[in-house]
Amino acid sequence: MRALILAGGSGTRFWPLSRRARPKQLLALDGERSLLQETAARLAPLAAPADLWVCTTRELGDAVRRQLPEVPSAQVLEEPVGRNTAPAIAWSVASMPAAARQGVVAVFPSDHRVADPAAFRDVLARAVAVVERDDRVMTLGVKPYRVEPGFGHLELGEPLPGDPELRRVARFVEKPPPETAERFFHAGNHLWNAGMFVFRGATLLELLARHQPELAAGVAEIAAAPGRAGELYPRLPAISIDYALMEKLDGLGTLPLDCGWNDLGSWEALAEGLPPDAAGNAARGDVVALDAEGNLLLADAGTVAVLGVRDLVVVRTADAVLVLPKERSQEVRRIVAELAARGRDDLL
Amino acid sequence: MRALILAGGSGTRFWPLSRRARPKQLLALDGERSLLQETAARLAPLAAPADLWVCTTRELGDAVRRQLPEVPSAQVLEEPVGRNTAPAIAWSVASMPAAARQGVVAVFPSDHRVADPAAFRDVLARAVAVVERDDRVMTLGVKPYRVEPGFGHLELGEPLPGDPELRRVARFVEKPPPETAERFFHAGNHLWNAGMFVFRGATLLELLARHQPELAAGVAEIAAAPGRAGELYPRLPAISIDYALMEKLDGLGTLPLDCGWNDLGSWEALAEGLPPDAAGNAARGDVVALDAEGNLLLADAGTVAVLGVRDLVVVRTADAVLVLPKERSQEVRRIVAELAARGRDDLL
Repeated sequence: MRALILAGGSGTRFWPLSRRARPKQLLALDGERSLLQETAARLAPLAAPADLWVCTTRELGDAVRRQLPEVPSAQVLEEPVGRNTAPAIAWSVASMPAAARQGVVAVFPSDHRVADPAAFRDVLARAVAVVERDDRVMTLGVKPYRVEPGFGHLELGEPLPGDPELRRVARFVEKPPPETAERFFHAGNHLWNAGMFVFRGATLLELLARHQPELAAGVAEIAAAPGRAGELYPRLPAISIDYALMEKLDGLGTLPLDCGWNDLGSWEALAEGLPPDAAGNAARGDVVALDAEGNLLLADAGTVAVLGVRDLVVVRTADAVLVLPKERSQEVRRIVAELAARGRDDLL
Repeated sequence: MRALILAGGSGTRFWPLSRRARPKQLLALDGERSLLQETAARLAPLAAPADLWVCTTRELGDAVRRQLPEVPSAQVLEEPVGRNTAPAIAWSVASMPAAARQGVVAVFPSDHRVADPAAFRDVLARAVAVVERDDRVMTLGVKPYRVEPGFGHLELGEPLPGDPELRRVARFVEKPPPETAERFFHAGNHLWNAGMFVFRGATLLELLARHQPELAAGVAEIAAAPGRAGELYPRLPAISIDYALMEKLDGLGTLPLDCGWNDLGSWEALAEGLPPDAAGNAARGDVVALDAEGNLLLADAGTVAVLGVRDLVVVRTADAVLVLPKERSQEVRRIVAELAARGRDDLL
């Protein structure tokens, strides 16, 4: 199989650690290796470096190649501009050699955590088997382990042949209201949409030609004249692969993933994934904490010293420090917006 | 008059801004100039630079000279080791030329704030007049503007001739219990002991010879052989001038100071002295604060960004950041102690 890792994100949720030129997927948020490197390592037993493709942005291309030196340089594709996942996936698959396109391609985000890679690979291998057997398009859905209105959900349809857990995806549900998410959680008939797909490359392109002819034509044009990508790519419709294709497929199948998945969507989500010290703080780097509890304390540069505080995020980089309550982690984007409004490109 | 500024302190209350080599008095906590420079500037109309003496430590001598280049280098005295205020004052006065010693000497801490220097000088000039008229030893007491159990208090005795506000100091009261401090405050019969004294130099040495013969003899020995200071000074009794002498004097006089004095004894005390912004934060440096109120936000290097926090101290230096509740400012010493225990001399 070939694996396509989408690494074009430029999130601001981990400011001040994440920056335009150093987004979340390039950070070692959760270990020694970056999330991108972890993603590649997780896939390695199923997809050798020569079979990895990475779609990123022009700004990040060099950094991605530095982090994944074993991936052939030409297989790190650089979008001239970000146009959401449908163009990224279509262009990447269209850029693969014909032989690769005829085989199975699996698509993954580059910025999620998987605590149990073996369980992940087991499900992925079974999804690949389904694709090979029936030429079905598959998505891997994460088995919910809490009520989560912040994620899109996949409603499970009838069982399908080929794997005891294989189910048709009956419906995509955008971020549900909290009560609905709670109902989903207890009924157990939904998975979280985690943006992982498996398909035959040629099949995906055929389906796109049927459902998104404009996108498919544009991608074919770029594939025929790669030198014109800078001019043509920005004209592709900026839509997600879910909206462009997956939601429209009758035969989309899914298998449930139960592999310690975490989307690391905020400082709070990161803190949940780090082992707490004796005082219940998740701390990394040079940290002194006295009478402090439940904090995320991260010293990327210099020393973080706290006393008598609870449930805060304190993140120090070489040029900035962020302090906010853990439960308001999502609002870090307001700080980024404020810095942008002040013209502080040095901090973005 | 001659002024003697005591600048040997090595406080840790303003960590991470204050360090062993850069203690509070050398910091511009409250403006463009350091507290030491502010102290000298405040005295300038009454004591020209040629009449200023500074007693500091060997470690800080060069830094003091750099901050006060107009003070003759030989008048910056460097204690071989800190031995509290009685040896510092006695040695400094004994080191002055005889002509200077015969005149009025006024002693001041180097690390306090005075919002109204003109009012301060008015009282100081009146104290000098009392000393000149009666050869009395004087202390300037700060008129309390709040209940403050953290300060020593001076109990006012009977009026003395020479100034309408001149009173005898009836008694020194060490840090009183809160209820006592409250009673003092409402009765209005006490001043805060702020460590400011005015006397004829020769008189002080005579009084010390009577009350602290060991100290006086030691100081005389050093004055006669300055080259042996490194050997002799550490043997002087380490006592405060209050305890060594002032508390023992029957004739100690005082005048009340009402000059916006602040001892800047903690981050909280500093915050009280800084003008708050619209959201009630006292902020200095490159600060972004959203939905944040009542904080002290100080960026000495880099950027401080906070969101949704209240009544915190956040201080960022080039190598560290401190976060603690404002009301627990005093406990910063616990962090310094912890760093010392960890052998982190780089941060002390």
